[in-house]
Order: sequence, then structure tokens, then C-alpha cells
Amino acid sequence: ADLQQGRAKANACAVCHGQNGLASHPEAPNLAGQPIIYVTQQLKNYKTGRRTNEIMSVIAKPLSEQDIDDLALWYSSMQVEVKMAN
Amino acid sequence: ADLQQGRAKANACAVCHGQNGLASHPEAPNLAGQPIIYVTQQLKNYKTGRRTNEIMSVIAKPLSEQDIDDLALWYSSMQVEVKMAN
Repeated sequence: ADLQQGRAKANACAVCHGQNGLASHPEAPNLAGQPIIYVTQQLKNYKTGRRTNEIMSVIAKPLSEQDIDDLALWYSSMQVEVKMAN
Repeated sequence: ADLQQGRAKANACAVCHGQNGLASHPEAPNLAGQPIIYVTQQLKNYKTGRRTNEIMSVIAKPLSEQDIDDLALWYSSMQVEVKMAN
């Protein structure tokens, strides 16, 4: 998988998932730092229809295996730090 | 929804989703800082079967509406910071 390719392809995702992987849409998840296997599996599920969503089902349809691997690498490459609620 | 109730109920989730909401299982997503609407919707999807997963379908079945709201509040209350890959 190619990180720079992933970064470029993620521009299409930023409108809902944010430039930094933190969701800019309340119904979308954060993708920043998500485990690579999880992201890959969910994109495949949307592509095959095993998981459905109005937007994601359409977006995932044309993605190639390479696209999916690049995007999963890109999002999983983000470092995430968590501050717990007190 | 009740933050402290959510924290207590999230102990059952920590084995895969981590004490701090960062996945400790490569096939599980991070939940830290996820938008509250997204977490609520996904738990409901697992409970109704609209979304399926070997583990989550079983875990979500007995959750009450209150449980789901408390858990969603707890995870969305975590502050997340992202450092981008260069």
C-alpha cells in the first residue's frame, strides 16, 4: 500500500471524515488512527454490500483493492491521543 | 444519558475497544471521541441486526436504550487529538 496515494485518495473522504480523520459530519465516524484491518474490512463490506449506508455504499463501489489498501494505510498511519473525560 | 453509568458499562467493551477507547483488537475500531450519533446508530444497528458482527451482534442484543445512550455519551466524551503522518 502507498501512503501518499492514500493521502490523495482520502481527499474524497474528507468532506465527512475530516482532513485530519476526525468526523466533520455527526453521522460519520472518526477514521484517524483506526486499525488498518478494521478500515480495510469495512470498505470491503460496503463494496460487497455486507454493510450498507446511503453514502458509503456508493463511494465504495468503484474502489479497487489498491485504493482500499492505500486508504486504510493512510488513516491507520495517523497518531491518536486520547484525553479521558474526568 | 449518564456519563458515569456509561463509564461503568464500557468496562465490558474494554477488552476489544481498550480502556481508553483505542482498539486493543486489530479487527475492532477505536471508539474514543466518536460522534455520539454514530455510536448510538451502530449499537442500534447491531441490536436490530441491520449490521452484523460475530461479537457485536451478541453484545448488543441485551442493551437497553439507556445502556446505548450512556455508552455513546461515554465514548463521545473522550477528547481525541490527531498527529498526521508526514
